[in-house]
Amino acid sequence: MAEAERPTLEELGEIAVLARIFPRLPAADAALLGPGDDAALLAAPDGRFVVTTDMLVHGPDFRWEFSTAEDLGWKAAATNLSDVAAMGARPTALVVALAAPRSTPAAVLESFADGLRLACAELAPGCGVVGGDLSTSDVFTVAITAFGDLEGRAAVRRSGARPGDAVAVAGELGVAARGLRLLFEHGRDAAVRRDAHAVGRQLRPVPPIALGTVAADAGATAMMDLSDGLVLDARRLAQASGVDLELDPLDDDALRGGEDHSLLATFPAGAPLPEGFRRIGTVTPGTGRVLVGGDEFGELGGWDPYEQWDGRLS
Amino acid sequence: MAEAERPTLEELGEIAVLARIFPRLPAADAALLGPGDDAALLAAPDGRFVVTTDMLVHGPDFRWEFSTAEDLGWKAAATNLSDVAAMGARPTALVVALAAPRSTPAAVLESFADGLRLACAELAPGCGVVGGDLSTSDVFTVAITAFGDLEGRAAVRRSGARPGDAVAVAGELGVAARGLRLLFEHGRDAAVRRDAHAVGRQLRPVPPIALGTVAADAGATAMMDLSDGLVLDARRLAQASGVDLELDPLDDDALRGGEDHSLLATFPAGAPLPEGFRRIGTVTPGTGRVLVGGDEFGELGGWDPYEQWDGRLS
Repeated sequence: MAEAERPTLEELGEIAVLARIFPRLPAADAALLGPGDDAALLAAPDGRFVVTTDMLVHGPDFRWEFSTAEDLGWKAAATNLSDVAAMGARPTALVVALAAPRSTPAAVLESFADGLRLACAELAPGCGVVGGDLSTSDVFTVAITAFGDLEGRAAVRRSGARPGDAVAVAGELGVAARGLRLLFEHGRDAAVRRDAHAVGRQLRPVPPIALGTVAADAGATAMMDLSDGLVLDARRLAQASGVDLELDPLDDDALRGGEDHSLLATFPAGAPLPEGFRRIGTVTPGTGRVLVGGDEFGELGGWDPYEQWDGRLS
Repeated sequence: MAEAERPTLEELGEIAVLARIFPRLPAADAALLGPGDDAALLAAPDGRFVVTTDMLVHGPDFRWEFSTAEDLGWKAAATNLSDVAAMGARPTALVVALAAPRSTPAAVLESFADGLRLACAELAPGCGVVGGDLSTSDVFTVAITAFGDLEGRAAVRRSGARPGDAVAVAGELGVAARGLRLLFEHGRDAAVRRDAHAVGRQLRPVPPIALGTVAADAGATAMMDLSDGLVLDARRLAQASGVDLELDPLDDDALRGGEDHSLLATFPAGAPLPEGFRRIGTVTPGTGRVLVGGDEFGELGGWDPYEQWDGRLS
């Protein structure tokens, strides 16, 4: 952490900490009432709203040896915004619950708020923070809940892919995973020297948020956010839809690498793909399998925090 | 924890853990799409929704030596439902992010889900869980975000109290704090023998959720949930409204004790109080002070996790 070490959260107290954070948080256009009451009030003009929640825990989900606090704020926002976009919705607002050790410098929380603001401004202008909660824990933990507006659209689910549909992707594949591998192998500074782009995408993912509503408007039959790797996530979509997905050959990173938060979508046969999407395969009748270059892709990869996280906080 | 120690989360893996939890979670009447996609979709029939978030961390917010997992699920739901009710809204749904040590018995998460279900059924029928996230952490941590429907009402804020209004409370005062003191002094079993009601209210608060909409319909000018103690929270309401609150004399537990999650509300002078509310004072012109029996109540009490939590997990 490059931030000033003093004052800490403990030295300032909750009210003073909040007073430092609030001015740095992004405002939400949809907020009818923001912080200051027991709950916020948000507009949901079409009578429905999309909601998703995601927790980032120091150790399994991020590490201070790799991420700055601003990186973490960015990533926490970006990953949640991506889940909203994957439904075909426009992100409108976030609420943020955060638990930090009492010795944490207040500047860390300021930088975290900066990351939230920068990500919202870049990825989903008009989306902002409407509420939150601060607590204390020996393990730095962030839980974000994000909201979106379908603006009258039908939600795009995982279960709508039909045989004959085109399989398409918007965004990079395998880049964030390459960045993570470099960070583990070489540490942050050397990893950045080897591939600054990949490391940047791991620490500050840039999901194609605006393409979520574009895909929905273009008639996407199914869609999801690629968080655990193309093949693993494609299998989830194939199983939810009761079809097979036949993918073109791609390199191993692209097939297995997670955390790109690109969009995987299916579109009706013959329909032109919206700008930003590229075709990577075809939906065929089947039983929830993923085939790559004609062969079933067996070993999954992917990430299960209970099975695979080794508990080391190095 | 009385639950079976095996299998653990690590032994089962995330998918099998979720398969055990899902059937125990309460369904939400407002859910248009529940778990299974990247985000849930909820109805917001009046074009707005209320949202609040709250994090419970092992140590500062709960302890396994006092709480069962079912207690924790109940309390996590109840405290969030209370914040929704305090706006004059009917709670509709929750999303739940949970991080647990990998060695946690799966039965703990099942009991936690039972607590969520029991609290929703008792306090806010029709409210249910529409999404969530599971992660791993050395510190058991729960973050709940709750939603509510104002059903066409104006939101009741902290800032609407006017001189002449009656100050009223629904629910108990100081009981949960007495329960906590007994738990710290005597441990769970002996504390229950001394005052089972107070200990029960600390571990499984029973906020008057249904009275939130009743108060709004009766013309409440301001309202809030009493989480940090009557005087501290009343001062917040007084400051937000730019008035003083003159309270009748009450015992020290009632004035300072937190976590009852009772409702504090103000009603127009002369209007009959809705059933369930009792008058405890009057709003007067002022500057954000709380007077008890005519004297300003100086020392605040209340709870600041950054200043007051001592970090011991005993």
